[in-house]
Order: sequence, then C-alpha cells, then structure tokens
Amino acid sequence: MEQLQARYAAVRKHTLALAEPLTDEDCGAQSMPDASPIKWHLAHTTWFFETFILERMERDFAPFHPAFRILFNSYYNGIGEKHPRAQRGLLTRPAMSQVRAYRADVDARIARLLASDLSDAQRADLTMLIMLGTQHEQQHQELMLTDVKHLLAQSLLRPAYMDIPLPAAAAVAPLTWLDFDGGLTDIGHNDDGFSFDNELPRHKQYVAPFALASRLVTNGEYLDFINAGGYFNAALWLAEGWDWARTQNLKAPIYWFQDEKGAWQEFTLHGPQPLDLNRPVTHISLFEADAYAHWAGARLPTEFEWEYAAAQAAFETGLLHPAGATGDGLRQMYGHCWQWTSSSYAPYPGFAAAEGALGEYNGKFMLNQYVLRGSSSATPEGHARASYRNFFPAGARWQFTGIRLARR
Amino acid sequence: MEQLQARYAAVRKHTLALAEPLTDEDCGAQSMPDASPIKWHLAHTTWFFETFILERMERDFAPFHPAFRILFNSYYNGIGEKHPRAQRGLLTRPAMSQVRAYRADVDARIARLLASDLSDAQRADLTMLIMLGTQHEQQHQELMLTDVKHLLAQSLLRPAYMDIPLPAAAAVAPLTWLDFDGGLTDIGHNDDGFSFDNELPRHKQYVAPFALASRLVTNGEYLDFINAGGYFNAALWLAEGWDWARTQNLKAPIYWFQDEKGAWQEFTLHGPQPLDLNRPVTHISLFEADAYAHWAGARLPTEFEWEYAAAQAAFETGLLHPAGATGDGLRQMYGHCWQWTSSSYAPYPGFAAAEGALGEYNGKFMLNQYVLRGSSSATPEGHARASYRNFFPAGARWQFTGIRLARR
Amino acid sequence: MEQLQARYAAVRKHTLALAEPLTDEDCGAQSMPDASPIKWHLAHTTWFFETFILERMERDFAPFHPAFRILFNSYYNGIGEKHPRAQRGLLTRPAMSQVRAYRADVDARIARLLASDLSDAQRADLTMLIMLGTQHEQQHQELMLTDVKHLLAQSLLRPAYMDIPLPAAAAVAPLTWLDFDGGLTDIGHNDDGFSFDNELPRHKQYVAPFALASRLVTNGEYLDFINAGGYFNAALWLAEGWDWARTQNLKAPIYWFQDEKGAWQEFTLHGPQPLDLNRPVTHISLFEADAYAHWAGARLPTEFEWEYAAAQAAFETGLLHPAGATGDGLRQMYGHCWQWTSSSYAPYPGFAAAEGALGEYNGKFMLNQYVLRGSSSATPEGHARASYRNFFPAGARWQFTGIRLARR
Amino acid sequence: MEQLQARYAAVRKHTLALAEPLTDEDCGAQSMPDASPIKWHLAHTTWFFETFILERMERDFAPFHPAFRILFNSYYNGIGEKHPRAQRGLLTRPAMSQVRAYRADVDARIARLLASDLSDAQRADLTMLIMLGTQHEQQHQELMLTDVKHLLAQSLLRPAYMDIPLPAAAAVAPLTWLDFDGGLTDIGHNDDGFSFDNELPRHKQYVAPFALASRLVTNGEYLDFINAGGYFNAALWLAEGWDWARTQNLKAPIYWFQDEKGAWQEFTLHGPQPLDLNRPVTHISLFEADAYAHWAGARLPTEFEWEYAAAQAAFETGLLHPAGATGDGLRQMYGHCWQWTSSSYAPYPGFAAAEGALGEYNGKFMLNQYVLRGSSSATPEGHARASYRNFFPAGARWQFTGIRLARR
Repeated sequence: MEQLQARYAAVRKHTLALAEPLTDEDCGAQSMPDASPIKWHLAHTTWFFETFILERMERDFAPFHPAFRILFNSYYNGIGEKHPRAQRGLLTRPAMSQVRAYRADVDARIARLLASDLSDAQRADLTMLIMLGTQHEQQHQELMLTDVKHLLAQSLLRPAYMDIPLPAAAAVAPLTWLDFDGGLTDIGHNDDGFSFDNELPRHKQYVAPFALASRLVTNGEYLDFINAGGYFNAALWLAEGWDWARTQNLKAPIYWFQDEKGAWQEFTLHGPQPLDLNRPVTHISLFEADAYAHWAGARLPTEFEWEYAAAQAAFETGLLHPAGATGDGLRQMYGHCWQWTSSSYAPYPGFAAAEGALGEYNGKFMLNQYVLRGSSSATPEGHARASYRNFFPAGARWQFTGIRLARR
Repeated sequence: MEQLQARYAAVRKHTLALAEPLTDEDCGAQSMPDASPIKWHLAHTTWFFETFILERMERDFAPFHPAFRILFNSYYNGIGEKHPRAQRGLLTRPAMSQVRAYRADVDARIARLLASDLSDAQRADLTMLIMLGTQHEQQHQELMLTDVKHLLAQSLLRPAYMDIPLPAAAAVAPLTWLDFDGGLTDIGHNDDGFSFDNELPRHKQYVAPFALASRLVTNGEYLDFINAGGYFNAALWLAEGWDWARTQNLKAPIYWFQDEKGAWQEFTLHGPQPLDLNRPVTHISLFEADAYAHWAGARLPTEFEWEYAAAQAAFETGLLHPAGATGDGLRQMYGHCWQWTSSSYAPYPGFAAAEGALGEYNGKFMLNQYVLRGSSSATPEGHARASYRNFFPAGARWQFTGIRLARR
Repeated sequence: MEQLQARYAAVRKHTLALAEPLTDEDCGAQSMPDASPIKWHLAHTTWFFETFILERMERDFAPFHPAFRILFNSYYNGIGEKHPRAQRGLLTRPAMSQVRAYRADVDARIARLLASDLSDAQRADLTMLIMLGTQHEQQHQELMLTDVKHLLAQSLLRPAYMDIPLPAAAAVAPLTWLDFDGGLTDIGHNDDGFSFDNELPRHKQYVAPFALASRLVTNGEYLDFINAGGYFNAALWLAEGWDWARTQNLKAPIYWFQDEKGAWQEFTLHGPQPLDLNRPVTHISLFEADAYAHWAGARLPTEFEWEYAAAQAAFETGLLHPAGATGDGLRQMYGHCWQWTSSSYAPYPGFAAAEGALGEYNGKFMLNQYVLRGSSSATPEGHARASYRNFFPAGARWQFTGIRLARR
Repeated sequence: MEQLQARYAAVRKHTLALAEPLTDEDCGAQSMPDASPIKWHLAHTTWFFETFILERMERDFAPFHPAFRILFNSYYNGIGEKHPRAQRGLLTRPAMSQVRAYRADVDARIARLLASDLSDAQRADLTMLIMLGTQHEQQHQELMLTDVKHLLAQSLLRPAYMDIPLPAAAAVAPLTWLDFDGGLTDIGHNDDGFSFDNELPRHKQYVAPFALASRLVTNGEYLDFINAGGYFNAALWLAEGWDWARTQNLKAPIYWFQDEKGAWQEFTLHGPQPLDLNRPVTHISLFEADAYAHWAGARLPTEFEWEYAAAQAAFETGLLHPAGATGDGLRQMYGHCWQWTSSSYAPYPGFAAAEGALGEYNGKFMLNQYVLRGSSSATPEGHARASYRNFFPAGARWQFTGIRLARR
C-alpha cells in the first residue's frame, strides 16, 4: 500500500499547489453556477475521501464537521441533502484555514488507514476507492484551472493566475488528412490500469472508413471563419446552436476580445495576450465546433473514430503515429485541447452503474451531453488515455475544448 | 402523374377532414410554443407546396399573398424571415376562410402543374417534391391531433374532439421477452418507397444480442410505478429528468387526473375517460420512460435494436412475428404509441442534407433530441415504416409516446 | 326603474357594437397577459351582473353555466377560483355564440328583476349595483379598444379595426401656461352622480401654486424629443425607467414605426397612418412621459393639481375655461388621452373598501401604480368626470395615454 | 475645519470597526443583487470622497487606481461606466489589503485638503461635500450590517457576527393610541443641520386628524397574525403582495425558522436566538406590514402623519412625549426599526436635484418605492432626524424594518 499512499499524497499535494498563486479571497468566489469556488473544490475532493472511504472503513468514524456532509456534497442524492450549487460562493464559512485543516485531518486518517492491518478484501476495496478518489481529484484539478480562469476574466483588472510569460507557439504544420480503414472494432477500456465505469464494458462497434485531421484547428484558421461571417450564417449552424449564438449575440470565442485598435487579444491564465495564430483554438462550444467544421467542408469525428485512431497509435510526447495511417501521424491528440466529438454521451452496451451513491458518478448524466476525447493543457499528468470519455453540454465554453476535423 | 395527383388530393382532403370537428375559434388558438394552431397547420402545409413546388416550377409564379411567405414559414432560414413561433396564436388574420381559399388555390395550381407538359427531369423532380410535401403534410396531420388535444385539455370544460365513445381495450397478454441475436446489421431505408433524408444512407451497425418486450407498457403497469413512489425516487431518474420532474412537481402523465373520489381519469380526444389499465401508457416523456424502465429492471432499446427487430418481422395488423425470435412475436410495434429509444438523434454515417432550404428539413435538429420508432394511433395510414425516425426532446409529453422495454 | 333599464340596455348594446367589426377568430386571441380577448370581455362583464346581482337577488338563482363562475372571474378572490389570466386566449370554448347566448340570458333576467316588485331597500341596492355594473362595463369598453388594437398590431397584415379613414388633426395652437393659485382645496367626488369608491371620501389637500399646460404634448413635439436623443440620455430618466427602456431597446412610442424611406408611421385603429404631427402623442408610458417632461424643463402634474384645475372650469366640448386662470383656457382635458400624473395611486384619507368581494374592486391595487386623469378618445361618452382616477403601472404603453405638462 | 476633520475621521474609523469581526473571505461575498460585499462598501464610500471631492478640488489629482472609477461606481451615470451590480461578489481583486490602502490614501489626501489654504467658497463647498460624504458613509454603515446579516444567514453554519449575547427585551407595555389634531402643517427639513435633498423644500401639507400607536408591533403580536392564518388570507393583502407571498410560499418573516420541535427561532447578528416575543418585529416587507395592519383593524401612517407627530415631540432616549398628545407618549420612534409608511417616495413640491452626477443621489429613485421613517438599531448614532426619508421597494425584507400602526 505504500505506492498507493505515495500516489494519494502526490495528488493531494498537487491540488494545494494549484491554489498556491491565489488569495483566500480568490478562493471563495463563484463566477457562474457551472463553476465552483476553489475552496469548494478543495473541500469537496476531501469530502469524497471522507464519505466514501473513512465513513465506510474507519473504526469509530466521526465526521470532521457534521455540516460538511451537506455543504460539500456535489450531486449525490444517495448521500442526502446538498447545499444549492449556485450558492457555493456564499460559503464564506468555513474559512480557507478550516478547509486546509479539514484536508490535513482527512489526509492523516487516510494514511493511518492505509498503514493499518487490512484483510485482502479490504485492501482491494481500499485500492479501488483510493484510485477512484485520486482520479476524481485530478478531474477537479482541471476544473480548478478552468473555473479560476473564468473568475479572473470577470474582473476589469484582468489579473494573471501565473506570472510567468506564455511562450509563443511554434509555426504550425499544414493540416493533412490521415485515412483509417475502420471495420468492426473494439471500443472501451482495455488494460489493467484504472478506468471510470463509463469506459466499460469493452464492446464491439462498427466504424466505416474515415479520415482524421493531423492536428487541431488553430486560432488563425478560426479567425478566418469569423472574418468570413461564420457567426452570422444560419446555414452553418445547428438550429439550437443558432438560437444560442444569436440570443447571446456571440461573435468570437469566450476569452477573445479586441483592443482599442481592433487587434485580437485572448485572456489566458498568464493574463491578456495577443492572439497567437499558431496555437490551437480553445474554449470552443460544440455549437461553434460544429459550425466551423461545416464551414470547412468537414465534420466532427465520432468518439469511436477518435478512440479507434488513437488506440492504433504509439504514444509519444504529444505525437501519435498511427500504425495503419499514411502520412505524418496524428499530432496534438493529448495535452492541448479536449476534442469535441459528434457522439452523444450514452452508456456502452451492458453498462452497469455501481451500487449505492457511487453509482451516481457517471450514469445519471448520460443525456443531452456530448463526448470529448483526448486531454488538455490543464489535464494533470498521467490522467489521459485513449478510452477516456469527458463530456459537457453543447454550449459549454469555459473548458479547454478545441476542434479536430474528420471526414468520410 | 395521375396516381400522384390522386395521392396529393387524398392527403390534402384528409387534413381538412381532421379540422372538421373544430370551430374556427378552436383553429386559431396556440396552447404552448411547442404546439401550433390548426389554422397554422392548414396554411403551413400549403405554404410548403407553394414555396417548394410552385415557386420553382410554375410559369409566371405569383404568390397567393406576399405576407404568407413570412407568416407560414416554420423554420427555414433559407427562405427568409419568419413570424415568431410563440405568437402563431395571434394570427387572427388571415381568417380561416382565407386559409381555406389559399388551400383551394394551391391545390388547383398543383393539379394544373401535374397535368401540364413536363420534361422527364421535371417529372422526376415534381414526383420527389409531391411525395415530400404529402409526407410532410402527414406529419402535420399527427401534430394537429396532438396539438388540438393539448389545447382542449386547457379548458375547464374538457371538451371532446370526437363525440364517439372510446372503446375499451382488450385484456392484455402477459409481457414476454423476445431474444435477438444481433450481429453486424444493415440499418436505414432499404426499398424503393419514399423515405426522409434522415433514414439514409443505409449503413452497417453492430448490434449486440438483446431481448425486446413483446408489447408496450400498460397504464396499469405504469400506475404500479406511480404507486411505488416512482416519481419521488431520485435513484431511478437521469439527473436532468429528476430536476425536470421535481421543478414541475410531477406525479403522473400529463393527461391523467384524479376525480373527487381519487379515481384516476385520463383526458382523451373523446373527452375525459376512466383510466383503462389495459391500454398502453402514452404521453410519456423520455425522462419518465427511462425512470420506469430503471424501476422495472430493464432499459429502453436503441433505435438500431428496434429497427433490426422490426425489419426481421412480417407486418400484420398490429402484430409482427420476428423470424429469428422465440415466443409469440412483437405486438404493438405500430399504430399504438411512438416508442422512445435511448438513441440520440444523429446523422447516419455519410448523411448529406439537400442543397438549399430543403436541407433544413432534418439535419439541423440533430442535437439534444432522442429517436422514437414505430407509429401511434394518430399517425396517418401508410405513413409508418421500420426505418422511420421520429424525434423529440427528452421532456416532450404531448405526443402519443409510450414505452417498450429492452434488456441484454 | 325604467330609466335604469334603459341605461343598462344602452351600455350592453354598445359593448356588442364594439365587437361588430371583428370576426369570431379576432375575438378569441390574447396578445399579452395584460390584455384580454374580446370574447372574454363580453363574458366577464356579463359574469359581473350574474354574480353580483342575479346571484344575490334572483329567486331560485341558477347559474347559466357553473364553469363560467371560474372562467370569467377576473381577480375576485372572494368569489373563489379563477382561470389563469395569461391563458384567456386558450378558451376556444365556450364559443362566441355561447357567450352571446350568455349575454342575452343575463340581460333578460336583469330586465325581469328590474320589472319585478322590490322593496325600497332592494330598489336602492339594485340601483347601486346596476350603476356599478354598467360603469364597470364602460371601463371594459375602453379596454376592448386598447386590447384589440394591440392584437391587430401583432399581425404583419396590419389590419384596420375601422374601415373609415382617420381625419387629419387641425393645426395646433401654441402651448401656453395657465397659472393656478392653489391653496387648501377639496378633492374627491362631489355631486349626486355615480363615482367609484376610490374617488371618496372628499377630503382636503393643500395645493401649492402651479401652472398647467394649455394643451397636450403633440406627436411633433415628442418627435423633437426623439430626434434630440431623448431615449438615450440617462440624465432624463427615472432609474427604473432607464433600465426599462434600455433592456427593451426602445426608441419611440409602441405603435410608431418607420417605413422603408424612414418616414414615421403610426399604427391606429384605422390601420397604419402617416404620423400626424398635430395630434396629441399617445400610448406613452409614465417613464416616457416623465423623461419628456424633464427634457422640456417641466414636470408632470399631481392628480390634485389636475383635479383642482379641472374642477374650476366649465365643461365645453373638449375645452375648459378655468375660472381663476389667465389666458385661453385648458384644452384637451377629456376625450383625447388619459394624462399621467406624478401621483402614486393611494387611498384617500378615510377610504373604506366595500364589504365582501366587491371591496376588491379598487383598494387592493393601490400600490406601484400611478394615477391618470381626464379621459381618452376610447372612453365611452358620459364616463368621464373631474374626480375620476384611472391608474396603470409606470410601464404601461398600450392604453391611450398622453402627456400634459405642469410647472411651479 | 478641525471639527470637520474630526467628524470625517470618526465616521471613517467606525466603518472599519464594523468590518472588524469579519474575515477577508466574509468581506468578498454578495448574497443577492440587492446586497453588496463589505469590501465593496469599504471601497465605494472611499470612491465617493475621491470622485466628488478630490477629483474636483485636489491640485494635480490622480486617481488611486484608474479602474476603481468604474469598479466602485454604484449608479452614477454622470460618472460613466459601472461594474454590473449583481457581480460585485466576483471582485476578488482588488484584495481587501488594497482596499484598506485605498481608504488610507484617500483619508490622508482629504486630511491634507482640509488643512490647506482655502477660499471661503471652497471652504463652504468642502464642508457641504464632507457632510454629504460622511452621511453617505453612515447610510452604508447600516447597509453593511443588513448585508452581512443576509450573507451569514445563507450558511448552514449560521455564524454570529457578534459573539456577545443578545439581551432579552423588557416586558412590553400595552399598545395605546395617541390622538393628533393634524391641520395645515409644515413638512420637511427645518433647522441648520444637515439634510438630504429629498427632505427639501420644507412645504405645507394638510393632515387630517389621526391616531398613532404608542409603540411598534411586537414579535408576539406578529406571531398571532401568523397563527391566525394571516399569510394565507387573500382578503388581507394588496393584490401584488398576495402574488408575491404565494409565489415564494412565505409563512413568516425572512429570518424566522422553527427548530425540530417547532419552536420559533430568529437568526440575528448574535446568531440564532429563541424568538423574543417582547421585541419589535423586524425585517418586515411593506406587503407584510400592510397585511398585518389590515388584520389588526388599523392602517400604516402616511409619512406626513409620522413626521408631524415626531416633530411635535421632544427627543429623549428612545422615547418621545408628543406635546399635543394624550397618554404616555410615543415610544420606539428611533433606534429600533424603520417604520413603513403608506407614502410612495415622491419629490416634495419644488424639489430640485443638484446639478451633475450628485443630482442622481435621490431624485431618480422616486418611483415604486415607499417611505420609511425613524431609524433602526443598525442606524449610526446621530444619523436620525424627524424629517429623514428612508425608502425601499415594497418587497424588501432584509432591512431592519418594522410596523407602527395608525388609524383615523
């Protein structure tokens, strides 16, 4: 269990490190109902371990604070009452110092539990739960960055989260098309490592022949779409996307703005920056991604096409050379932007949720959401894999989401 | 073209027959933004022929009334401006008499066009458009019944659309499970007959082995779900469905109500009726259908499972005996209720929308909607087929929608 | 009681005459929650007589239809349940023919009651109630015109309510200021004639010296305000008015629009007309009236100033020569537009509402509404008087409301 | 100017003292759009001095921070752009430490200005502006307490603002009625001291004879109203109040709640407390106050009745013995709860707002708000006077507002 304790400690430490550049005041605010305060992330991830591990396995369990069971429950009806999601920014109490104490207390108790005498069954159970809890916390690590970016963007002062400068992107290679044969394929998690329940069971899907773009769409390409009037051409948009865009009078991605001279800028975690035309376009909703693809004479891939292509390939730093593909290989599959697919988030054939409250982790969200594949610059190291299914509603813009094109 | 003219005349006549039991006042009102006034249906279906046939093919075309181009455009951005959907009930002008005159005028001009000298290309084009227009009008025939039912249900007087009594349903056979082998199957429209673009192209889908219920869920079975507290058990519901049900404080299907003694009644096109426990439950949202299936230890079928099962079977009046299935056969596949599937409405691989405004017919709605298969008691004769894809958002309750269960 | 019967019959007949130019379809629609369908007005005014007279005084009373008690109750909680206000346009049943039959039936029964043997107390009571009911019906006669105008304005066809042409207004005299001494004055209804409870009791108010404009503000003058940027100058507006105008992006009165060449037109009961610069501006909210007054270096009068000025004057057709005033006299006090005052609608000192449901007639609305004085072109003959208090919320635009300026 | 500097310093110091019991996290949150974060109050009151004094009178004026001009502008359109009101809780930057530095900087510059050589005109101007600014800050001192109370009430932890216990109220004397003759009275600010522009000009009002309750309505008396079903009896309520109460399903004042045993508790600045039946009921909307008065067979006073009664009286600690009144005298006129009047907030005859942005202080809010008189337990010492006009919309519940009854 030492390895498990090491993993646990490393993940927990990284979460605190992400909060390091922020003041206590920064950590309390909630910029919209979809986002959460940093303090809430710090507490909720701790609540997860307390509720699903300590409460089940600790002798003489007593909660750190009885009210925290309600305050830091995100959406588990099986656990009971919840503090209203849209009012997480009003929790000035408990203070950050109390939340840090809560983290330290749970960490110590988890360490004691891991070091204690356990039966084989307990050991297996604990391993599974620690893996789930740390993967869960890694998901929140990404959300902390997306949520704090959204918060800082609300301020006229446009403060930077990181003081270090954003390096310029390298010149971008031309987009090429990689052909895949498809056929009757196996989809879903495969190996011995961890996966979420929504990646299972591994099952067959028939995939028709298709081509995938060698890299993500860039800011420069997306700017061409804007300059061609893309946001104002109904023929390019899904009906719901058109209403969505026009009601909000959208003209560009969420963090883009024009300075006094009309030059495009982008708000980033490093503060406002001149728009880098070589960088992959990000913070794109599915509506925008689909309209762009339509304009470019292409389409979005299905999640099965994406996984099939990724699984064929060897994993190298940010570069995949797919076995059966002609050309240069797939670039930017991981570590840049989550990639929208045209696949609705649905259970795999034979999917079964866990018993009890943990069964609420994924299954109950399988409606009116769309699958994203890959990973982003905000995804923690080691958290990505070919079978990973991220998901958001079609209008979500505050995540690090981009566009990879596909075609027949 | 005589056969075409006969089909055209028959469909058009049937539409007027559906409006027969209604007063001009009934025909003007709109009970909610999702529904339309009967008068609007009468005019819009006519507008469809005028815009997509006469305007393209009639020599010296002049519109019946220039404003009708805007007033009776439903959602075709390619045609131009539209009257706001939620305000269709405010169109007291044109009067019903004018709309009837509009219908007669367009009918006469279509008849002249069909009887005129046409090139082979024109003949083919016209045939396609008349087929599309009449199928379109048949879709609106069903909507006229669902919309007028919703309207009449708003009145304290609870008036009947039809004065004839509703016959009692026969005693219902026990629900049995029919096993299907699945495999790599062909999905999509197949024969020479008409289909919509969303049924094409025919393509391969892998379907894992599954079982389908022999008949639809009955009112009696759904009442058991209600009495078991199904509407108040979060564990049974999708997250979005739970919010949807609790926000509206739902307790039963939309047209069910309890009389002073607590006995369940159902509002029907024949007026209020005691709840018939043998009849298939209808006017069910996907949220309710999914919660029921969960409670019953089953699930909803995918649209591919449904089509595969239906396509194997011979079509007899309300009864299908699937070739590879054990047991009694599939009942109530058509003519009772549309059957929710768990499949998000999405383009088939290789789907291509038509050029121009007609391309808006289906494609732009392929997001956040779910597919229904089969047909209902309100579907016009001859309008159903195994590859037909109906679709509505998960919360739609005013359509004739029911539940067929599936399981592994 | 013959005179009373004659008044009753005349008022009832006039209501039907107002519905004469309309189709049954026109009579059913409701263009917004604040307005009601003509059919509803016809039925509700009848309900008023049935509920407050026949139900109390008729031997062996039986309702014309039991559901009408609920369907045509406007806001009387003391009577019981009500049909939801925003859904009056969904009452396609009862049909217009039934509502006409309802009117005829109640008229016949009222006539029988008036011709029957009555005690003196009954006679007094009946006289009071017939007066109240006919005055009530006259209020609805004005609302029928404002509501049908709003409905017809929603249609692209812009149909006219009246086919006769709208005569041009005479050239307008220059606006002059009439000075009033004020002092300790008596306010409230004074003579033997009918009044509503909100005009009572007559009581003392101190009025400081003031001046009143000799006539109403014209369309031409209001156009100057528009052209001077009045709708976009925050300094002129009340805080709530500014939010109201900017949220709706208002630029002109509700029925004004510009034709293709930019010329101002106004939608009227006679259909669209070129804007007549000499006519008093109408369909003005209090927000707009107040901003205009501010821009013109003046203010709106209080209701006490208005009544004091009007009461001093002799009544001649559209022209009042106030006794103590210098200059030409007050024009357009009645019969053109209701005139906004700066007075919040509040009970007079000693105000007491009637017992029972009739006490809901006025008192419960005395909050967040503002008083209008005078009468409009839509007010029935004989319905105006100096002490009359009309009232609407500050944002109401669909009434025939205009501007008379005041200053110190 | 030394006295002025002393006043300035004392008021500024008291503001900081009010924030003393709070953490930086507490100071950043905004519990609803009507309330503001404590940090925002600290900055806005400073902005007021910087904008209206330093910017006008300081040589070589440079703003402390250019963005603060926008961030901390409340509603002055004359000053320019404003940060959106509902998003004040998202201003995690500037930090509390920066806001404290801002306060110190402006304080030092104001002190320098007061100590500098000034002309008589400058001295007069500065005196007026310092008085206005400190009175303005005192208004915000009260808002800080109402806003922080509302914020702390949102937390399940129900933290106390003050750790000291809330003393029990003394037994309450029976309510008696004090008669006033009324007549032609003078209303408005009278003496040499400071007043806001809305208290001017002093002018005549006729007040009919009336009686005023000797003390405020208590929690015990209000509980009787609740127990008598007052919240569910439409006949007691204004129409708008009834909709307001039923839509929110209200049953009691905002901070009242029942513990597990059904005993009434009240959330206070000292944390939750058993309901003290002797204490004046507070946090009452005008809707509730009016319904209570109706139930009690009384009414609310007009603001003129209140001021006339108060002005006749000598001021002693919390007790006024009105000269012309019989009985014991008026108690609790000041220092307990603001007292709703039935008077709409309107300009006094001859009211003229100041030139420029300062003219927005009061005048533009004179619509759909109602006047409160007296002062509350949260009002700073020395801030109350007989002519003071506080005002809020009828539905406001989070202020320290109570009920004094009047009758004929």
